[in-house]
Amino acid sequence: MKAITEVPNAVVKRLPRYKRILKELLKMGKTNTSSAEISALTGFTASQIRQDLNNFGTFGMQGHGYEVWKLYDQINRILGLEERYNMIVVGAGNLGQAIAHYTRYYKAGFPIIALFDVNPRLIGLRINDIEVMDFSCLPDFLRDNRIDIGIITTNKDSAQAVADYLVIGGVRGIWNFAMTDLSVPEYVAIEHMHLSDSLYLLTYQIQLNEMAQISSLGA
Amino acid sequence: MKAITEVPNAVVKRLPRYKRILKELLKMGKTNTSSAEISALTGFTASQIRQDLNNFGTFGMQGHGYEVWKLYDQINRILGLEERYNMIVVGAGNLGQAIAHYTRYYKAGFPIIALFDVNPRLIGLRINDIEVMDFSCLPDFLRDNRIDIGIITTNKDSAQAVADYLVIGGVRGIWNFAMTDLSVPEYVAIEHMHLSDSLYLLTYQIQLNEMAQISSLGA
Repeated sequence: MKAITEVPNAVVKRLPRYKRILKELLKMGKTNTSSAEISALTGFTASQIRQDLNNFGTFGMQGHGYEVWKLYDQINRILGLEERYNMIVVGAGNLGQAIAHYTRYYKAGFPIIALFDVNPRLIGLRINDIEVMDFSCLPDFLRDNRIDIGIITTNKDSAQAVADYLVIGGVRGIWNFAMTDLSVPEYVAIEHMHLSDSLYLLTYQIQLNEMAQISSLGA
Repeated sequence: MKAITEVPNAVVKRLPRYKRILKELLKMGKTNTSSAEISALTGFTASQIRQDLNNFGTFGMQGHGYEVWKLYDQINRILGLEERYNMIVVGAGNLGQAIAHYTRYYKAGFPIIALFDVNPRLIGLRINDIEVMDFSCLPDFLRDNRIDIGIITTNKDSAQAVADYLVIGGVRGIWNFAMTDLSVPEYVAIEHMHLSDSLYLLTYQIQLNEMAQISSLGA
């Protein structure tokens, strides 16, 4: 099996999607699957799927396809999902609250331990049974609790300062929803969730579709 | 200038980031910039930036760099952001409410006209001054109003049915936050926002960092 670091980035980005498909197959009680079946469910070509999955060793057996559980487990392992990650949310506005609720679905692996905010009207509230704490308590909290992932849902002007606190406090990763890019040391993982970026890719597609229609009318 | 359809997908995905950087430069009062400056702000290499921006024609003048406004305008045009997009949100739970608030920042271009839900406790509420309407009114609403983008923030079991209503109702694009992939006709644009996918890419990076640390300790 190849070292994980050798898996190309483009393949890694498709793994969560494979994971979702495999979970559906498991729910349907399927024990085996094929690149053709995964292709039908994802829209990726069967040959791309075989190539992608080849990166993780030899799962498929010629003519027998893949064992769903084995593949699902392997993808979880590669994505680092066998561990438990303690998370906190900084910024308890609507988005922070939505995430506090949303992550219920992430099941046991991603508990949110606390929310933090500077707004006195939010401090002390319980959201999905998670306490909103005063932001000024964050450094002490991080010293006293092992937090793996800090989620930033503040406005963009506060986001870098929050990231700095989180880094000093020892988080291993930052999930950033603030509308700005953040700098963190190399040893801290960061993933940006820019909602507006996704919206702009949608309007781009809308525009492409329109141009395709116009040019087909002209033809 | 190349036709927009010829711009490679990987370049398109970087455009929202360029847009953000250029906006910052505009705010700082800069009229000109260079690939070196954009490189320092994005982390992309200067040569990649020059290559990316070359896709949109000849903006840069050797030794003079880029005009910030011109480049910003051009990127907005390519992303389809010169238009106004009427949006509705289906699913007025925390995430739908967060989006209703969040899009305030998107300024004039993306007004949210209404929210829809099946929950009687939500119907009739006003969220960020937008009314939550009964989901059963959706088909009539779509017939009577020009809606460009439907945002789906329901649970995953309802999402495909909602998408079908939106397609029949004539939306041009769907922004899907439900944790499932949806099928829509080719002429409807769709962009999936799978929060958990982003979280898994974060845990993947965390794991890579850890392995790098372990192997550097061993060296």
